[in-house]
Amino acid sequence: MDAAKYDVVGIGNAIVDVLAHADDDFLQSHELAKGAMTLIDSETAANLYDEMGPAVECSGGSAANTIAGLASLGGKGAFVGKVRDDQLGAIFRHDIRTLGVGFDTLLAQSGTPTARCLIFVTPDAQRTMLTYLGACVELGPDDIDPDVIAESKICYLEGYLFDPPQAKEAFIKASEMSHDAGRLVSLSLSDAFCVGRYRDEFRDLVKNHVDILFANEDEIKSLYETKTFDEALQHVREGCDIAALTRSENGAVIVSGEEVHVLDAEPVANLADTTGAGDAFAAGFLFGFTQEMPLDKCGRIGAIVAAETIQHMGARPDVSFRELVENTLEESLD
Amino acid sequence: MDAAKYDVVGIGNAIVDVLAHADDDFLQSHELAKGAMTLIDSETAANLYDEMGPAVECSGGSAANTIAGLASLGGKGAFVGKVRDDQLGAIFRHDIRTLGVGFDTLLAQSGTPTARCLIFVTPDAQRTMLTYLGACVELGPDDIDPDVIAESKICYLEGYLFDPPQAKEAFIKASEMSHDAGRLVSLSLSDAFCVGRYRDEFRDLVKNHVDILFANEDEIKSLYETKTFDEALQHVREGCDIAALTRSENGAVIVSGEEVHVLDAEPVANLADTTGAGDAFAAGFLFGFTQEMPLDKCGRIGAIVAAETIQHMGARPDVSFRELVENTLEESLD
Repeated sequence: MDAAKYDVVGIGNAIVDVLAHADDDFLQSHELAKGAMTLIDSETAANLYDEMGPAVECSGGSAANTIAGLASLGGKGAFVGKVRDDQLGAIFRHDIRTLGVGFDTLLAQSGTPTARCLIFVTPDAQRTMLTYLGACVELGPDDIDPDVIAESKICYLEGYLFDPPQAKEAFIKASEMSHDAGRLVSLSLSDAFCVGRYRDEFRDLVKNHVDILFANEDEIKSLYETKTFDEALQHVREGCDIAALTRSENGAVIVSGEEVHVLDAEPVANLADTTGAGDAFAAGFLFGFTQEMPLDKCGRIGAIVAAETIQHMGARPDVSFRELVENTLEESLD
Repeated sequence: MDAAKYDVVGIGNAIVDVLAHADDDFLQSHELAKGAMTLIDSETAANLYDEMGPAVECSGGSAANTIAGLASLGGKGAFVGKVRDDQLGAIFRHDIRTLGVGFDTLLAQSGTPTARCLIFVTPDAQRTMLTYLGACVELGPDDIDPDVIAESKICYLEGYLFDPPQAKEAFIKASEMSHDAGRLVSLSLSDAFCVGRYRDEFRDLVKNHVDILFANEDEIKSLYETKTFDEALQHVREGCDIAALTRSENGAVIVSGEEVHVLDAEPVANLADTTGAGDAFAAGFLFGFTQEMPLDKCGRIGAIVAAETIQHMGARPDVSFRELVENTLEESLD
């Protein structure tokens, strides 16, 4: 892999998460789709927040979480995403920049406030997400800096970016620029319902533009409309160069042509909140990949940092991922 | 104790906490007073935030934490404190109101933003706090609603309120109103350095106005300028009706005239962050007291909820305090 200023540039919705505990009755009485990400407007967000218990705020956003995880592993990351010039925007910018991530997207000076995601964590540690996109809808092709894309080994895109209308154009532009510069494009499918909203476009993308695909079991089955995981696996082997498919407590499958690895999940002592598990897995995998490690080791690192992420509230690293991985693998990452 | 709409009304600085891990070298190189609360201006706050690692935001404020804890125990609380009409102010208001706490202080419409406290948590779980008071300096006597004070069994005041200039007047006014209505006044000394800033006034208050005093070992020794805990204990027995003195892992001493209880600390499996330990203790004690429980049981409930609070990041309850206490005491609080 050619040298570059950044290992990975992530492009995604720039979101502050608002996390609170809730029980299943709350989800049912408010007709919230458990485990999914649902888009909501500002009025619904305000009403739902009124009903939400006391909360904790942390920076979030799927691709942003991945880049934060990559940085915590010692990787060099950049992020592109839109916040407003408000207090939540300042929190988002602080949290990603303080990790050493390059983040220079211009702040929106007017319009809707910084995006937030109301996350209800049920006693089974499952998270149910309601996203008010706010300033994310302002992200467009002009926010893509060609130099940053060309100087990143991998351009990593979240499927959620298909929701804000102009962001899709930014998404396509960035992936074309990346390939033109001889770099790789990676996509996370994000959410099974999101796949359902844009299935044809995602299939086309995966087949024609994506080099490294991340998906969980529900998402990959939704993409190919299959009943079983194995059927989806056979489809994706034809579809793109490398796929990393996560299966929660059942581990992960990494596939690249003839090469297939079936990896176990890492042990989890205290499951607290599954928010960000997939994002962390992608961080670990992409860190290993850009360090030119073998694919099974990339997957193992992903599994280690995902297991850490689900043992506390919030999607961002709570410890140094690098130290965690070094201690678990009993080897230096230098 | 006469019936009342509220068990406790708390008056304090309304603050959003910004918590991050840091090591001792960071504290030393920035000359931060470990374990203390230091006031900072907006420029210092901005500079220090730039240097701070990725953070988590939670509502805080000493008296506000206590009222939140009281509500989590099933007590009826009200809170008086000043935030601005900004995003952090909305978070503060949400988090306290959603617990069922009465919070009707008018928002500041102009001036400085909502207060924040930068909290650095070192690997020993000790917290070091740097507070930018922001909108708290707008709190004044006009914010004290006589009806709320008269309808609260206890008026609870934090010593930190002596820092913003007008708040001191609000503090005095509220304590006089409370006594005029035949209610009790309670004070937390807050911080040993804060005691040092206002020692003579605090001594006068404790002697002439305070019915229930909360202090930790450093604070009570600072108040009476004694070398040993026991010397301070003898002073405070003369000084006020009831004193609840906390000593971290060495438990607590409750003293009221002839009645003295020396209580053990509760076991702590995973010490994470000591922020809010004293606030939680006061919540448990005041809950028991307003339910007319014996003093040793009030102290035990305080110790139980304090032990829970220091096992996660942030000062607010992470579980139902009521369920926790019922499970620990193996009895219903109904």
